[in-house]
Amino acid sequence: MKLRAVLHIVAILILFEGLALLAPLGFSLYYGDGDAIAIVISSAFCLLVGGCIFLATRNQEELKLREGFAIVVLGWSTLTLFGALPFLISGAIPSISDAFFETMSGFTTTGSTILSNIEAMPHGLLFWRSMTHWLGGMGIVVLSLAILPLLGVGGMQLFKAEVPGPVKDRLSPRIADTAKILWGVYLLLTLVEVVLLLFGGMSLFDSLCHTFGSMATGGFSTKNASVAHYNSLYIEMVILVFMFLAGTNFSLHFRFLTGKHDVYRLDREFRFYFLFTLIAILIVSGIVFLSKPVGPGGALRSASFQVVSVMTTTGFCTDDYELWLPSGQLLMILLMFVGGCAGSTGGSVKVIRIMVVFKHSLTEIKKLLHPNAYIPVRLGGRVLAPDVVTNILAFLIIYMLVFVAGSVGMALLGVDVVTAFSSVAATLGNIGPGLNLVGPIDHYGHLPAAGKWLLSFCMLAGRLELYTIFILFIPDFWKK
Amino acid sequence: MKLRAVLHIVAILILFEGLALLAPLGFSLYYGDGDAIAIVISSAFCLLVGGCIFLATRNQEELKLREGFAIVVLGWSTLTLFGALPFLISGAIPSISDAFFETMSGFTTTGSTILSNIEAMPHGLLFWRSMTHWLGGMGIVVLSLAILPLLGVGGMQLFKAEVPGPVKDRLSPRIADTAKILWGVYLLLTLVEVVLLLFGGMSLFDSLCHTFGSMATGGFSTKNASVAHYNSLYIEMVILVFMFLAGTNFSLHFRFLTGKHDVYRLDREFRFYFLFTLIAILIVSGIVFLSKPVGPGGALRSASFQVVSVMTTTGFCTDDYELWLPSGQLLMILLMFVGGCAGSTGGSVKVIRIMVVFKHSLTEIKKLLHPNAYIPVRLGGRVLAPDVVTNILAFLIIYMLVFVAGSVGMALLGVDVVTAFSSVAATLGNIGPGLNLVGPIDHYGHLPAAGKWLLSFCMLAGRLELYTIFILFIPDFWKK
Repeated sequence: MKLRAVLHIVAILILFEGLALLAPLGFSLYYGDGDAIAIVISSAFCLLVGGCIFLATRNQEELKLREGFAIVVLGWSTLTLFGALPFLISGAIPSISDAFFETMSGFTTTGSTILSNIEAMPHGLLFWRSMTHWLGGMGIVVLSLAILPLLGVGGMQLFKAEVPGPVKDRLSPRIADTAKILWGVYLLLTLVEVVLLLFGGMSLFDSLCHTFGSMATGGFSTKNASVAHYNSLYIEMVILVFMFLAGTNFSLHFRFLTGKHDVYRLDREFRFYFLFTLIAILIVSGIVFLSKPVGPGGALRSASFQVVSVMTTTGFCTDDYELWLPSGQLLMILLMFVGGCAGSTGGSVKVIRIMVVFKHSLTEIKKLLHPNAYIPVRLGGRVLAPDVVTNILAFLIIYMLVFVAGSVGMALLGVDVVTAFSSVAATLGNIGPGLNLVGPIDHYGHLPAAGKWLLSFCMLAGRLELYTIFILFIPDFWKK
Repeated sequence: MKLRAVLHIVAILILFEGLALLAPLGFSLYYGDGDAIAIVISSAFCLLVGGCIFLATRNQEELKLREGFAIVVLGWSTLTLFGALPFLISGAIPSISDAFFETMSGFTTTGSTILSNIEAMPHGLLFWRSMTHWLGGMGIVVLSLAILPLLGVGGMQLFKAEVPGPVKDRLSPRIADTAKILWGVYLLLTLVEVVLLLFGGMSLFDSLCHTFGSMATGGFSTKNASVAHYNSLYIEMVILVFMFLAGTNFSLHFRFLTGKHDVYRLDREFRFYFLFTLIAILIVSGIVFLSKPVGPGGALRSASFQVVSVMTTTGFCTDDYELWLPSGQLLMILLMFVGGCAGSTGGSVKVIRIMVVFKHSLTEIKKLLHPNAYIPVRLGGRVLAPDVVTNILAFLIIYMLVFVAGSVGMALLGVDVVTAFSSVAATLGNIGPGLNLVGPIDHYGHLPAAGKWLLSFCMLAGRLELYTIFILFIPDFWKK
């Protein structure tokens, strides 16, 4: 392990975070809630520590696989640690467990909150909270489309040939080029959503925060009642559309913008994602219609927002799905295991993996009839390499194992069965709200501290596609 | 599809069922509860219909894969249909959904019941009910060790070389020889348990019924309070040991009886099964100790019986685990997904598959570090064929898909989330009791009729290792 090279890159991330912390300062001074000093101290601390490490580790070695994994995990954890400083220093979130949980929830674009009264928070801190989403989203787009395919993680190899940007042999230049292209798309979509939300009568502050929440499929709102606060069909529709776009592979957006207008229609994963969302909305609409006296229009409005929000793993809400019929609650739990497309900011298992797993099961059943024939797994016209298929199967199984282990952990801490299951599903899938004690109108603040650390780990593991985390537990990883 | 050859064998099964129905007649006449006529009519009907089909289809064609699958599915369903007759004709269970559910629960060795007052049933019918377990258990031992390995189902190919009996090329003689050996072991263990229970003060009737329930890992009791009725440590221990033995690969018992006394110690799956059970008992004991004032001894007694009962998929109970702490309930749900060893009468996923899936996940993580190396999945010193591994992975995933689809189905019928999830887990895994409305002290009688049919399907699909059922849904299966 070339530790100095790893620390050098992590130092760059900390420096970048120090600069990023200056953005909320503007809102802090404008609204004058008294959080400016905490933000300035945090920023200075980041710049100081980051600068020291940067200078102490100046190093230009060629990076290999191991370093790639170490940078990803260490980078995300360090950003979270430093990102929690403004909350702690200002005293707005006095407990370390709470501040770490909230920041991890931000950077992993989860959106689970420990705050019971969001509107009481100073504006600068609220802005930073939403901004962690946006920065995390930037990170995840690059991670999933430029880094993980090269590291061979969880079937993301499928996209090795499909990422935009010039194909080069060495790791760093290619990542940098791809990152620039994807961030361009990310910024453009962000800008459009902010403008559209401003048109809907939102303040600049709220527009930015809600855009950060939707583009990153995060879900932090600046209002206690989340998006329901606005009770505006226009605002809901804008956010819905952008949640859906954020749950789409960003390389498709890029290709669309370069003039390839049939790129969505031709992409198998997008078609499945689109149809699946549509069918889920229809079924859930029926259930909402039967659950409460809102009429067919109201049911469709509530169902479409909640379905897209949970499936893209955003977690904004306009309705409390715990008041729906049991079948509606159960479908929401299941949608938590779908997630967005690969290469999106969405979390959870992801549409492409679900497709491959389905196809593989079907192929295995067919094989029984023709025990001596070679039947490959196909997606579209394309034959998938057996290696990629087993890798994806293992991903799903590790996902389930972590889900189960996490639930047992939560239950051992004294949490009830439904809360245990749903809090782990919601954090591992980077969604946000769960059921029962952590339902859409509740929060995570009352959970035991150990539970918050466990769920923080789930968020990180889910966000980094599991493999990236669990490889650190293999003794081989640390061997020379 | 050679339908005549398939029907010929199914006819033999019906004839056999007609004869088997004469066994409860003895108890019926002895206790004089008035169910004798219904049993005689049912028996006569089986012999008549079975005889007619037998004579109409006399056929000796060589059987192939397709016929194998058809016989298994059609056989199990037909036995259930005819086996429900005594309940219907006597009027003891007047509804067809209920009678079918109860008989399916018997033959699949599930043990879920729709009866609210078991002790009010006539003795002849109760005996038949328990006997369906025992017959189903006979079927499953042969199915899993003699038939499925040859059909290549769900990783059971692993045992192709390990089944006792002479290895021959053609299907039928080999199955017959293996069946005789396994049934010998099954009968011997049955006899020993009956004698031991008689020593414990149980009546012959109850000894037989509870032995049928434990040897088949079924779980039907003749008492409303299940095994708790006896409140006898001796009886609990006898049943516990035999549930554990019934959850063990029967080919190990056979080899042990032929003098290979280290066969259990050398078998990887058995060692895992033994250790896993032990650890589960210890953890659950701790939880029970914290849940209720029974002291350490009482906690160990309750935990060991409940853990072995659920893990082997029997479903007898001596304690209501719904009154334990949430972590205890959650662990019981998870144990429902483990099951016994392959080649046992236990259902659910099975220990060997869990082992393979674990190993595969570990291998996939290791592969990330050495992307160009060939790293096979090993079990003990043995390298597993990639085909077998992907087959087992697909099994687990199809299991989860059916679990999820079944739960959604139950929820759409209006059942609450916990009942929906746990009723499907308990029937698909052939366990018996679930949680909430179908908990250990409740029953399945109050579920909607459509739900009973859905759960009956889950029992059959789970018992026949999924593949055997789902292959029928592949259009290829029906092509000439």
